[in-house]
Amino acid sequence: MALLDDLKWRYATKKYDPTKKVAQADVDKIIEAARLAPTSSGLQQFRLIVITNQELKDKIVPIAMDQQIVADCSHLLVFVAWDKYTDERIDKQYDYITDERELPRGRFGSYTDRLKKMYLNQTEKENFIHTARQAYIGFGLAIAQAAELKVDCTPMEGFNTDKLDELLDLRSKELRSVLLLPLGYRDAENDWLMNMKKVRKPKEEFVINYK
Amino acid sequence: MALLDDLKWRYATKKYDPTKKVAQADVDKIIEAARLAPTSSGLQQFRLIVITNQELKDKIVPIAMDQQIVADCSHLLVFVAWDKYTDERIDKQYDYITDERELPRGRFGSYTDRLKKMYLNQTEKENFIHTARQAYIGFGLAIAQAAELKVDCTPMEGFNTDKLDELLDLRSKELRSVLLLPLGYRDAENDWLMNMKKVRKPKEEFVINYK
Repeated sequence: MALLDDLKWRYATKKYDPTKKVAQADVDKIIEAARLAPTSSGLQQFRLIVITNQELKDKIVPIAMDQQIVADCSHLLVFVAWDKYTDERIDKQYDYITDERELPRGRFGSYTDRLKKMYLNQTEKENFIHTARQAYIGFGLAIAQAAELKVDCTPMEGFNTDKLDELLDLRSKELRSVLLLPLGYRDAENDWLMNMKKVRKPKEEFVINYK
Repeated sequence: MALLDDLKWRYATKKYDPTKKVAQADVDKIIEAARLAPTSSGLQQFRLIVITNQELKDKIVPIAMDQQIVADCSHLLVFVAWDKYTDERIDKQYDYITDERELPRGRFGSYTDRLKKMYLNQTEKENFIHTARQAYIGFGLAIAQAAELKVDCTPMEGFNTDKLDELLDLRSKELRSVLLLPLGYRDAENDWLMNMKKVRKPKEEFVINYK
């Protein structure tokens, strides 16, 4: 099925059937779509946490506005981003890129120097505004991949990021939480949103043409 | 072709053939993928500007770090987001949603009251941090849709947002620019990136499992 059909099919699932688990092969594809996402300067400033531990999912419910979907889903994905930029992280990624491309390290040195100059002159807060944005690209692609596989998911921003960072000990990993994406299968009898019409602004309002 | 194949096929095109134009039907599908993107609370805080006017594209080159792709591409998409939240914008979208779903207006009143309380207590700058993030979801989906259609594109953050806002008179529309996405067809003879290996962190580094 084409992407547009998948996007029309999907909706933000509000109730999961906790007995239905997503196959690991499907989870792997959803992770892979996020991993393949383009990111600013190819730095891949975000990572993905996959939670299947029930006790841990239960602990996240009160952190996520008491939304039971976090506990009932099959897999809980947490999109996390670099807390800040550092020389080392930029160099590490570019050393990896040049090694993989069999190019001499430093081949993109003037480019990475420019990146360092820009990011290291910003505050950590400004850095994170930028790294967090990258996670949203992967988030969109993960949602599209789930839809292609007819796996339900719920895009979620509504949670206490500080508390989740603490629970998952993210700050020691120099990461911060950005987004949640529960995966699973809808409980069709109890999902209030499932049968509601998907509403988007009409195209003529969404697009502005400069011809 | 499956989404993962499309994502492996695509790359950030560095040189376009200016004689090749993307068919309107394909552009429409790319716009549609962005329009169908999920957004926070369904508010659709972003819009899409489509530029085909050559003179205007040429004017954007110096604003976009002199990158010629902006002039040579077939269509230049500009992802723009609400400059801030207002009561009126939230109400307008929710009135539209309830009308489309044939529900009484105000059906989600306690929810929108909570949104207003949250966003209107933030600074405009904080508001825009949030609205801009939503544009990245649509950006990811537009990139995926372009790849499905074998249309080349270049995800771009490298431009002066203030100058572009001024050139496109965005602030009077209460919008601010976030991202550029040139669309077109690669100039295969002159694109230095085309044949380079796509590099992503290995899966074991990208994913953290909590089992």
